[in-house]
Amino acid sequence: MPFKAKVTVMFRKSILDPQGAAVERALKSHAGGDISFPDISSVRVGKVVELTVDGTSAESVKEKVKVLADRILANPVMEEYTVDVEPLS
Amino acid sequence: MPFKAKVTVMFRKSILDPQGAAVERALKSHAGGDISFPDISSVRVGKVVELTVDGTSAESVKEKVKVLADRILANPVMEEYTVDVEPLS
Repeated sequence: MPFKAKVTVMFRKSILDPQGAAVERALKSHAGGDISFPDISSVRVGKVVELTVDGTSAESVKEKVKVLADRILANPVMEEYTVDVEPLS
Repeated sequence: MPFKAKVTVMFRKSILDPQGAAVERALKSHAGGDISFPDISSVRVGKVVELTVDGTSAESVKEKVKVLADRILANPVMEEYTVDVEPLS
């Protein structure tokens, strides 16, 4: 049975995120044209990996994807991740 | 009142995602490890931007963040995005 898994990987809070800082600066200085977004703070940029996984239950798929995230998709020293699994509709 | 907004940006389904294809190949062969994940397919890699936005309601913040995503964070020609907003706990 196919499941859709989504792994979201972000830098840990304690790690500086220069890409997020750059995005925040761009948003505040209206790099987009005629508007700016001064009410924005704490911008952090991460990556998300969506995959289709064949498995018997959402729990078993989640366990499998956690192994995968821990070993390959994320660097646990610097990054933290969340895993969401739902049946593929 | 502060809200936490999360913008997830992925390539449109019709656009090739070479990074996702590379990740899929790596997962299936798990180069440099003792396990592999053959049950995986349709890997796509995107980016996620988390931001703290000051606003009066979740709806108004969502509208604002959609403008921002449309104009700055995503390229609507090639990418699609989703916006989630929740009160900052």
